[in-house]
Amino acid sequence: MSGLLGNFVTQIGILVNDVEKVSTAYAEFFGLEKPEIIVTDTEDIAQTRHNGVATQARAKLAFFDMGSLQLELIEPDHEPSTWRDYLNEHGEGPHHIAFVVEGMKEKIMLLEGKGFPLQQKGEYTGGRYAYMDTFKELKVIVELLENDKDNGEE
Amino acid sequence: MSGLLGNFVTQIGILVNDVEKVSTAYAEFFGLEKPEIIVTDTEDIAQTRHNGVATQARAKLAFFDMGSLQLELIEPDHEPSTWRDYLNEHGEGPHHIAFVVEGMKEKIMLLEGKGFPLQQKGEYTGGRYAYMDTFKELKVIVELLENDKDNGEE
Repeated sequence: MSGLLGNFVTQIGILVNDVEKVSTAYAEFFGLEKPEIIVTDTEDIAQTRHNGVATQARAKLAFFDMGSLQLELIEPDHEPSTWRDYLNEHGEGPHHIAFVVEGMKEKIMLLEGKGFPLQQKGEYTGGRYAYMDTFKELKVIVELLENDKDNGEE
Repeated sequence: MSGLLGNFVTQIGILVNDVEKVSTAYAEFFGLEKPEIIVTDTEDIAQTRHNGVATQARAKLAFFDMGSLQLELIEPDHEPSTWRDYLNEHGEGPHHIAFVVEGMKEKIMLLEGKGFPLQQKGEYTGGRYAYMDTFKELKVIVELLENDKDNGEE
């Protein structure tokens, strides 16, 4: 599977019950500015699907830039999602490592063909994400991130 | 606490029950060479202390270089350790993010003074580590790594 995703981890995602409280702790611990809390889009915009089924799940997010790595705090609601499932099963803590890809559909199909099912996908302003169920093999979920190219460049 | 650790994450540590099996899966998934499994030193050499008490705990380790980030797989034995405690409580999955520091003793004292207890420490060839109990606040354990300077440079 060489080269399918590259090996540059761009983000670690950590599940929390209270993103406001934990992001305050991170800002203080690392001497960073406390970021604005972002709420994921509603289902009609995010087109979120979890295990192949549309879901209204949303999450509150906080992002910290830690050198070349981004740290994402995720407080999910109680609708069906990979975030809620994982939090219920494992408790708070790291959930995924993320890789930037091009050609999301093809990458998902390639990984599914290798036995890694698509667990959740959705759209955000400027791009889309997909969580692949790699937990059984890799003991962490792999997220694919595809960012739209700047129109000015095309 | 600005500047105490910097904000460059050098490593993610993931707890596993079978490092042989999981490291094979990583090598295949990322198209990387399967690394040699390293076993941590015995207590007399590693001087491992867990919650202030000497422990015979050891672990089998596998390291993957993922761009600027190192990914560490850890299969602990059943002696008392942060690895075994965390694995028993959360199951397999990510355990820590690590930061390279200078002046280990001072860094540990500074963090303890801020309310983050030392959870485990030990020596390895060429350096030493300390796991600080940041889980309650940061939802991940922070590891400090101090590497000895090359004698030739001093």
